[in-house]
Amino acid sequence: MKMWSWNVDKFVEEFTVGDDYIVDKLFVKYDCKASIAHVEMLYKMNVLNKEEKEKIIAVLEEIIELSSKGKFEIKMEEEDCHTAIENYVIKKLGDLGKKMHMFRSRNEQIVTAIRLYCKEEIEGVINLLKELVSSLKHVKKKYGDVKIPGYTHTRKAMPSSIALWCESFIESMKDNIKLLKFIANLIDKSPAGSGAGYGLPASIDRKFLSSELGFKSVQNPLYVQNSRTKFEADVLHGLWHVMFDLNKIASDIILFSSDNFKYFSLPKNICTGSSIMPHKRNPDVLEIVRGNYHIIKSYEDCMKGISANLISGYHRDFQLTKKFLVKGFKIVKNCINAVSLVLRNIEVNSKLCKKDMSKELFSVEKSYKLAVRGIPFRDAHKIVSLEFS
Amino acid sequence: MKMWSWNVDKFVEEFTVGDDYIVDKLFVKYDCKASIAHVEMLYKMNVLNKEEKEKIIAVLEEIIELSSKGKFEIKMEEEDCHTAIENYVIKKLGDLGKKMHMFRSRNEQIVTAIRLYCKEEIEGVINLLKELVSSLKHVKKKYGDVKIPGYTHTRKAMPSSIALWCESFIESMKDNIKLLKFIANLIDKSPAGSGAGYGLPASIDRKFLSSELGFKSVQNPLYVQNSRTKFEADVLHGLWHVMFDLNKIASDIILFSSDNFKYFSLPKNICTGSSIMPHKRNPDVLEIVRGNYHIIKSYEDCMKGISANLISGYHRDFQLTKKFLVKGFKIVKNCINAVSLVLRNIEVNSKLCKKDMSKELFSVEKSYKLAVRGIPFRDAHKIVSLEFS
Amino acid sequence: MKMWSWNVDKFVEEFTVGDDYIVDKLFVKYDCKASIAHVEMLYKMNVLNKEEKEKIIAVLEEIIELSSKGKFEIKMEEEDCHTAIENYVIKKLGDLGKKMHMFRSRNEQIVTAIRLYCKEEIEGVINLLKELVSSLKHVKKKYGDVKIPGYTHTRKAMPSSIALWCESFIESMKDNIKLLKFIANLIDKSPAGSGAGYGLPASIDRKFLSSELGFKSVQNPLYVQNSRTKFEADVLHGLWHVMFDLNKIASDIILFSSDNFKYFSLPKNICTGSSIMPHKRNPDVLEIVRGNYHIIKSYEDCMKGISANLISGYHRDFQLTKKFLVKGFKIVKNCINAVSLVLRNIEVNSKLCKKDMSKELFSVEKSYKLAVRGIPFRDAHKIVSLEFS
Amino acid sequence: MKMWSWNVDKFVEEFTVGDDYIVDKLFVKYDCKASIAHVEMLYKMNVLNKEEKEKIIAVLEEIIELSSKGKFEIKMEEEDCHTAIENYVIKKLGDLGKKMHMFRSRNEQIVTAIRLYCKEEIEGVINLLKELVSSLKHVKKKYGDVKIPGYTHTRKAMPSSIALWCESFIESMKDNIKLLKFIANLIDKSPAGSGAGYGLPASIDRKFLSSELGFKSVQNPLYVQNSRTKFEADVLHGLWHVMFDLNKIASDIILFSSDNFKYFSLPKNICTGSSIMPHKRNPDVLEIVRGNYHIIKSYEDCMKGISANLISGYHRDFQLTKKFLVKGFKIVKNCINAVSLVLRNIEVNSKLCKKDMSKELFSVEKSYKLAVRGIPFRDAHKIVSLEFS
Repeated sequence: MKMWSWNVDKFVEEFTVGDDYIVDKLFVKYDCKASIAHVEMLYKMNVLNKEEKEKIIAVLEEIIELSSKGKFEIKMEEEDCHTAIENYVIKKLGDLGKKMHMFRSRNEQIVTAIRLYCKEEIEGVINLLKELVSSLKHVKKKYGDVKIPGYTHTRKAMPSSIALWCESFIESMKDNIKLLKFIANLIDKSPAGSGAGYGLPASIDRKFLSSELGFKSVQNPLYVQNSRTKFEADVLHGLWHVMFDLNKIASDIILFSSDNFKYFSLPKNICTGSSIMPHKRNPDVLEIVRGNYHIIKSYEDCMKGISANLISGYHRDFQLTKKFLVKGFKIVKNCINAVSLVLRNIEVNSKLCKKDMSKELFSVEKSYKLAVRGIPFRDAHKIVSLEFS
Repeated sequence: MKMWSWNVDKFVEEFTVGDDYIVDKLFVKYDCKASIAHVEMLYKMNVLNKEEKEKIIAVLEEIIELSSKGKFEIKMEEEDCHTAIENYVIKKLGDLGKKMHMFRSRNEQIVTAIRLYCKEEIEGVINLLKELVSSLKHVKKKYGDVKIPGYTHTRKAMPSSIALWCESFIESMKDNIKLLKFIANLIDKSPAGSGAGYGLPASIDRKFLSSELGFKSVQNPLYVQNSRTKFEADVLHGLWHVMFDLNKIASDIILFSSDNFKYFSLPKNICTGSSIMPHKRNPDVLEIVRGNYHIIKSYEDCMKGISANLISGYHRDFQLTKKFLVKGFKIVKNCINAVSLVLRNIEVNSKLCKKDMSKELFSVEKSYKLAVRGIPFRDAHKIVSLEFS
Repeated sequence: MKMWSWNVDKFVEEFTVGDDYIVDKLFVKYDCKASIAHVEMLYKMNVLNKEEKEKIIAVLEEIIELSSKGKFEIKMEEEDCHTAIENYVIKKLGDLGKKMHMFRSRNEQIVTAIRLYCKEEIEGVINLLKELVSSLKHVKKKYGDVKIPGYTHTRKAMPSSIALWCESFIESMKDNIKLLKFIANLIDKSPAGSGAGYGLPASIDRKFLSSELGFKSVQNPLYVQNSRTKFEADVLHGLWHVMFDLNKIASDIILFSSDNFKYFSLPKNICTGSSIMPHKRNPDVLEIVRGNYHIIKSYEDCMKGISANLISGYHRDFQLTKKFLVKGFKIVKNCINAVSLVLRNIEVNSKLCKKDMSKELFSVEKSYKLAVRGIPFRDAHKIVSLEFS
Repeated sequence: MKMWSWNVDKFVEEFTVGDDYIVDKLFVKYDCKASIAHVEMLYKMNVLNKEEKEKIIAVLEEIIELSSKGKFEIKMEEEDCHTAIENYVIKKLGDLGKKMHMFRSRNEQIVTAIRLYCKEEIEGVINLLKELVSSLKHVKKKYGDVKIPGYTHTRKAMPSSIALWCESFIESMKDNIKLLKFIANLIDKSPAGSGAGYGLPASIDRKFLSSELGFKSVQNPLYVQNSRTKFEADVLHGLWHVMFDLNKIASDIILFSSDNFKYFSLPKNICTGSSIMPHKRNPDVLEIVRGNYHIIKSYEDCMKGISANLISGYHRDFQLTKKFLVKGFKIVKNCINAVSLVLRNIEVNSKLCKKDMSKELFSVEKSYKLAVRGIPFRDAHKIVSLEFS
């Protein structure tokens, strides 16, 4: 049973619902929480009496419980978690259940659930990033002193070290955390009570809803809808930020652990083999991280396309954005874990690193020595360059 | 059992395999066909005798049969269809099965399966496009004579008609078919026998493999690997081409069937309703088509990112591309069907169209009449413009 | 004269320099400021004495002055502003000038200049956004009370108003400002003294440089290089954020001022005409804003591609990013001004808006009235829906 | 003087025109050619007599001549080449000139000029690609026999050779040419006589115009407008195709000429130096090629965004696409030349290549030898793998 009344062509139903009814399993918990707050408000408004309120809340809590055990089902013909939850409440409570959707629109429910979901997921990513930082610190502690060539233009440039390499990513991970926190804060606006984007012909206490749900502020109803895809793109930009550095770490380790470098070694248990070449130890785990960078990037890009050139207000196109968030968080969390695991297992070959610290890496030092002796730097540079031409 | 021998960290295994082992179900058929050709070649090379060859082929045909009934399973720890198929053959035939992978690499197998898959899927898309063309012809036949305002800058410009609108998309769909055929042709190159990208230390008869598999030509081994993501991007560009026009058709119908136009009506059975607004009939089916445009576009974009800045040869990152093809074809086929369905059901409100054919649409005609009477066109334009200022 | 000594193939020189030497005119001021700080440090380090320091600074200030008048030239063969500035100093001061580049790399200079430039430009965008907010407030004050239909799915949904519309964008512009401020803060890290990405074989006082240049903190040398394209993408993401809302405002006004709506009117002086249709008044200014959304979006996308899959450290590819920042800021500032201008000139047709407030917009209100009388909302919704079927 | 009559706000004029009036210099020639065909048609229709026709054509040929010498100016307030050309004709011929725009729209003129431009530019790119193929053949001839390690997962895999490497790109360049030719063919449709997208209230002989201009067929008027951004994206996809391979060639040479490989050497005259490191020889020319890949990719992406979600018919947003074509062709032609130049100058270090052909590259050969002796391949693979564990 849908929230409206006629029969829709079977193909249209399947096509418009897509896999929403599967993705939506993740959102059941958040929608129930939002529904509890809504029911509390209906009680405050005297639409429900205390007993009614408590009955509905009890069923909603039952759904949360069922869902946590993977036992709350959403049928394809129910379209989404919001309908499934309302249907369940009606099935349990009859006419009382039919009152629950009073003063409310699915449009606001969807956004509310997404916001609550994102806030929690971002927190999860931040925690994993902190673990990654400690993996980087572990490498630094163990191998920080080892000198390695620093590259510019993929050519030996100046002396670097494992410490410098680790520190650069520790600092950038902190920036990533900073950005994710900011984004969690930016989107921390309550859509509850905003109706279909134009408010409701009733005195909704939106501040009450917002504070019940733990939001920082109440969002303009039309902006609730217009910020769809915008806030999703922000969240994915935050995830992109993380992937940017993971892509770099992966690129570095892949090259620096390859035959022509061997600064790093990856133990066999985190490598994969080849179906044809018996000698192979491949860094697939890092290649998958590296490749996922482009997937996350394209997810953000997709979000930014969907509502472009459309007028204000809700469009069904927005429904397509949910799964990109869900997949995005899953991929990024996996990738952080993957890189952490690699860092915990990586070995630095101090001897080979040392051997590769050839004299060109010290050309700047040499020219500075001349300069300190009074030769203007530009001339010192020229003198030293003759050695290498 | 994998194709190589050590135990890999559980997380690394799950992470690198991802959902490949599920996606790969679609590729079982194609890999078996390629394996049959390979076994025929091994027979020609005297690696297998006739009986051995026939035994292996019988098992491969059994797998095709099983797979067509959804009964051929790929276990996560098998990584992909290629390993699952080899394992199955070994389980059935023992040591004989272990010979099958002789003179062959998984790298070439993957690409071969993808190519065969794409060629078949493109054919499927083309067939649906032909149906879409006949849906457009249906609309043209039924309503072609109806005049509607033609818009430029989203403003009434000059007289148009349902016929002109239909014809424009009929012509563009024909271009889409032309492009898809070209792409199917461009990628019609045999990867079979190319090894891991550098050929094999054996006299492989690549022409034989190519002709057994129905490819137009044999592809350079390194180019086999380097064309990964490139050919995928081409295929998705072909699909994008289709979505471009579907997005336009959807945008037109959504606006022209809205309250302020009503040139078109969509019957209730292909509309959806609202959870809050009892009066609503929403064109969700078209909005989902419109939104999917951006998804397909981002898939192509993603393909183009994955191998950028990487050196020649296979990288595991390429493995990530498969599911975008699979999803891409599924989405586009669904969208074509959705638009066909809408076109078969759409109604044109001739009266409301006629009523909306207001006088500004004829301003060019008016100025031409003046021009024909001898007033230079630029002056005629100015004279008529005074009417509207 | 370049900073290095041999003759490069003419084509290679032109190709690698591109139009950098033109774009770089904008960066002269920032590089001079950074050079002044650098010279102060060289003085602190006793590399330069007081007189020498003052002589160099005087020339650098002369360059700033020249540049502000458009009189400082960068020759193509000088590659960039950094070389042109050093050459000018050497031309004026001879051997003394040759000392200026001591303890310094062009790589750090470029990033330093870009950071200073971005911080200043972001400030400029924020100021324009504040003006845009006041333009929105102006519309709200003048027309806020006017009711207009609120749309979902591009169909009449529920009653809205000019006030609601204005407020939604006022709130979103404030979010945009918040994000831009955050980004300005995120990138506010000093690259000065980081060398080519691996520090310098000398005791550079990076804190001194940072504080002289007004940066909030000192950035890890390798991260300086690795944050290239990352911070550029962040800045462009901030600009995208602005464009997202401008695209929406433009889309709204284009549709709502069109023949079938006429809620808004655009005075002739901000419209353009047609070469063929004498009656046309086109909203080109808004269409150009709308279209530029996609340009800014693609700029961000481009930044995100350039360093993907590359190892740590500087790559010349990064040089390509500068002009996207420059064009990005220019476009966005122009677009904000354009929308402000339109908002200051727009007229709302109260009568036509009122006329278009048809009864379906009040269907929710009607069902709430039934619900308040005791009919469960879901049943009330069904009853009212019969009216519209 | 514009083609329409009122005064537009100065900012609006500058903002909407942008740098079109500069970009349009490239299109003067094509618009004049189209105008000559148009005038021939007006003569056929008896709108112009023979003398009038010849007078106008003489002026148009004068403009082509002026333009080829860089002496035909387009003023900002004229907006584009079409207005500038019409103004020039009117200035020269008075009232006769005012007749030229009869039965014609700027919308069709713009598309016609772009098509003619693209066809010619694609031809130019194809010619450069043929030169590139001969540069690749030059390398193959000179160094083809040299064996180099073949890499998978950025690790040594199996023996490769300079010949294989060259041949892979020769084959891919031929595919690129094939695609470009197809695209030139796909877009080879005449927009002439299509008016503003809805035809014209007059008996235009579109076949005559098409054949005068050398187009393959006549395009549906609405499709003329709806194919804007679509055909641009196709052209840029063709250019992306080329850049994909150039990015790969550049990535290969950058890595394989770096300190840890040295398979290739780049002579000094095509390298650049460092402002700080006296020893540096940097492959900037290849890095700029590599980076430009992402720019071309983002141009295509941008085209695909601009008309998304918009209804049929012309929108001013389309005007933004022109410069991306112009820049795209320029960049790609330069990049092809750059890679050709590098290939003509590159040296292969046969000795170092040979030295790097270590035993793991022959592990497949080894296991095949075992297999040929009767050990099933899977077992042979395991036996050989023990050597490397």
